[in-house]
Amino acid sequence: MNGKFIVVEGLEGAGKTTAIKKVIDTLKEYGVTDIETTREPGGTPLSEQIRSLLKKGHPDELLTNMAELLLFYAARIQLVDNVIKPAIKRGITVVGDRHDMSSQAYQGGGRGFDQTLMMGLRDTVLGDFRPDFIIYMDIDPELGLSRARARGELDRIEKITPDFFLRTRKRYLELAELDDNVVVIDASQTIEDVANDIQTSLYIWLENAS
Amino acid sequence: MNGKFIVVEGLEGAGKTTAIKKVIDTLKEYGVTDIETTREPGGTPLSEQIRSLLKKGHPDELLTNMAELLLFYAARIQLVDNVIKPAIKRGITVVGDRHDMSSQAYQGGGRGFDQTLMMGLRDTVLGDFRPDFIIYMDIDPELGLSRARARGELDRIEKITPDFFLRTRKRYLELAELDDNVVVIDASQTIEDVANDIQTSLYIWLENAS
Ligand SMILES: Nc1ncnc2c1ncn2[C@@H]1O[C@H](COP(=O)(O)OP(=O)(O)OP(=O)(O)O)[C@@H](O)[C@H]1O
Ligand SMILES: Nc1ncnc2c1ncn2[C@@H]1O[C@H](COP(=O)(O)OP(=O)(O)OP(=O)(O)O)[C@@H](O)[C@H]1O
Ligand SMILES: [Mg+2]
Ligand SMILES: [Mg+2]
Repeated sequence: MNGKFIVVEGLEGAGKTTAIKKVIDTLKEYGVTDIETTREPGGTPLSEQIRSLLKKGHPDELLTNMAELLLFYAARIQLVDNVIKPAIKRGITVVGDRHDMSSQAYQGGGRGFDQTLMMGLRDTVLGDFRPDFIIYMDIDPELGLSRARARGELDRIEKITPDFFLRTRKRYLELAELDDNVVVIDASQTIEDVANDIQTSLYIWLENAS
Repeated sequence: MNGKFIVVEGLEGAGKTTAIKKVIDTLKEYGVTDIETTREPGGTPLSEQIRSLLKKGHPDELLTNMAELLLFYAARIQLVDNVIKPAIKRGITVVGDRHDMSSQAYQGGGRGFDQTLMMGLRDTVLGDFRPDFIIYMDIDPELGLSRARARGELDRIEKITPDFFLRTRKRYLELAELDDNVVVIDASQTIEDVANDIQTSLYIWLENAS
């Protein structure tokens, strides 16, 4: 049987990486043993090179919004074709730290690319490949960034106006509303409460999916 | 007055770089003095990084056709937005070693991406930005590759089956047929005859364009 593709989404510092640990623990409790994790952008040698290009940018040159968008998709299709799809085929459940919803929210909502363009590009690049389940960690950007800031230096994407993240969050919530495969977790809660909500949502989904 | 964007296109070893010298000499004879050259993929710091990723690939990972396509477009939009458009605005005539027609021919014709996808992506990324004049250097792939081979090692894209280049040439010719801004030069001729043809075509275009 094919494995599933479960994705954790959310703003910087929402608690995605923390959530993924809980997702994996919950899957194991449920008897799912073959699990791989991925992160985007990145996760293959070439995608990691693209990630580093996106993160570093260049001191003398503006990375245009369009080039950024295309680079995200280039990294994504490498990961999907070379890692995620082959794993799923072998029955492995893949847990992703970000996937396409990040582009829809950041590039669509944050940068302001229109939704027709965003969905057109998604369909062109990914065809009908979609996650089976998305856990969206919803958080006020201020709170998320303050959590992330505590960890060290912020990179290029994090040095952006607060407005950008408000628009990104808004788009995340709009997309979650429209998509039955997305569950929204209140990520402003304590780590324990967040973990409980993740466990509950994932159990419900696993019960219905199998 | 805005500068023009003139592009030289063609297969490996067709004589594009040689042709560009003749284009520049002809422009100067005609009194055009502010000239810049570009090459694709590349031509900006970030685009050159993308070029190197495209050229090198990775020993343990297949670069998917789709990722390759997106990387070409990412490099292209960086060059268009940060170099070509600003130059043209300042009245500079830009002479490009390859541009979008290369993607249409190589990725569309060679790799087999369908034309709707290819033109959709072009419009999404470039909007209505197009070269003012394209000189397509038409050559039998065998002859072009044998010229290029004499210069040294062939890179990733050149280690491809002969069929690929036949399909690419075919698409180049189809596109040239449909586009009034493209002139086809018989690049199998001697350097002198090629140079004469370029000079004549460019003069005719310059007379009509001004
Ligand atoms: N519910 C929570 N309450 C308080 N702190 C939290 C909570 N969840 C995570 N943290 C802490 O906040 C920081 C960011 O969490 P985490 O790294 O999981 O977020 P992230 O969404 O993966 O961030 P990034 O997008 O930067 O990768 C970490 O130091 C983590 O321990
Ligand atoms: N008409 C011609 N007849 C014979 N040789 C030629 C002709 N034009 C160019 N050459 C030679 O063929 C080689 C390839 O030419 P050139 O570098 O101009 O091609 P190119 O299209 O720029 O190739 P590439 O795509 O690899 O950049 C060079 O050594 C050049 O001197
Ligand atoms: Mg994280
Ligand atoms: Mg050349």
